[in-house]
Amino acid sequence: MRPSPASPQRPAPAAGPGVSARRGLFLALEGADGTGKSTQARAVAAALRAAGHETLLTREPGGSPLGEAVRGLLLDPAHGPVDARTEALLFAAARAAHVAATVRPALEAGTVVVTDRYVDSSVAYQGAVRGLGTAWIAELNAWATEGLVPDLTVLLDADADTAGRRRASRHAGGGHAPDRMEQETAAAHESLRSAFRARAAAEPDRYLVLDAGVAPEALTRTVVEHVLPRLGRP
Amino acid sequence: MRPSPASPQRPAPAAGPGVSARRGLFLALEGADGTGKSTQARAVAAALRAAGHETLLTREPGGSPLGEAVRGLLLDPAHGPVDARTEALLFAAARAAHVAATVRPALEAGTVVVTDRYVDSSVAYQGAVRGLGTAWIAELNAWATEGLVPDLTVLLDADADTAGRRRASRHAGGGHAPDRMEQETAAAHESLRSAFRARAAAEPDRYLVLDAGVAPEALTRTVVEHVLPRLGRP
Repeated sequence: MRPSPASPQRPAPAAGPGVSARRGLFLALEGADGTGKSTQARAVAAALRAAGHETLLTREPGGSPLGEAVRGLLLDPAHGPVDARTEALLFAAARAAHVAATVRPALEAGTVVVTDRYVDSSVAYQGAVRGLGTAWIAELNAWATEGLVPDLTVLLDADADTAGRRRASRHAGGGHAPDRMEQETAAAHESLRSAFRARAAAEPDRYLVLDAGVAPEALTRTVVEHVLPRLGRP
Repeated sequence: MRPSPASPQRPAPAAGPGVSARRGLFLALEGADGTGKSTQARAVAAALRAAGHETLLTREPGGSPLGEAVRGLLLDPAHGPVDARTEALLFAAARAAHVAATVRPALEAGTVVVTDRYVDSSVAYQGAVRGLGTAWIAELNAWATEGLVPDLTVLLDADADTAGRRRASRHAGGGHAPDRMEQETAAAHESLRSAFRARAAAEPDRYLVLDAGVAPEALTRTVVEHVLPRLGRP
């Protein structure tokens, strides 16, 4: 028997498996390294929990046992230079596992899912910076996720100086040593930034673009004010 | 718009990156599990070496340090059921690493490369058996390999009984316990077989389809007789 050919095109949101049963809310934090994504993801998840909403904080690459194993392969400087296509496929594989094992089940259970990075990070890093093409990387990841798109994507936007200062203070402050992706980020900041902004500009209703230079507490408040009205009573 | 570097179409041999410098010969052994691929890959590589040709025997998934690490993730039964898209992307990632790190450099150095499995295995297992679509899996892997196509693909073709007997004798004979992929093969044999045959039928000049029930020594002789005339003096 010949299976019906799988379309690589992004399916309509209501057509994807599991999407019809979706009851939670899916929030993604995106931006170049040094824009405060991880800080905001944690703070927003904590604020939503404090408001009584079941909330899952997760991250990419990773977010599932197999995804974390792939994250280990990707971010370990010992693996040295990984060729661009291999890297893009590993990120897409980790994302497919994350969505199938973690994100969809949580959304179907009515949970709010907050992810630190999602598809846009691959479009910006692999598509734009690595030169693999933003349209193709978007198509690959739409297939990997069976078309699961966040309800809201928060883009933390910063110029190169602001992001560079944040990265420097993080490493000076006893944080972890820069991993392979972080080491490459500084050089590529403007290319990344414009790729992220292009994604946001194409779907303004689904994006909230915030100035990453604003005080973190004010940013968290703004995000939570956008999200709470979309959620029912806890 | 499809960016040109990501074009899944097979480039003209002289147009692909690295292909212009290609001097070796690329030979793939394909077929369902139990058709004797690994045995033939080893025997053919040994015969070509004995004839004086620099020959690299390699395999998929694997064939490079990163590819072997991904192979470990894929074949370990401890990971349990991996969702189909994650699996397809991991196989494609391992293949991209294999081609970039191992196959292309060897071909450019003039080596004969014999691989135990290549793109057709993904088209048959992930595309047909898993139902992800043979056309899409072929496109994904054409991108992953930058269009690198074997000079000759040997398809070992067997009916379900023959392949089942071979698998049974391998495991009874003290070989390794069946891994996750092997356990699933028996049930899917006819679907696999017809996907492999469809690939061969579409490009008859590039395929050599052999009856896997023939004596192994005779099969090796037939393959070597097809390959040697394509190689110059050692």
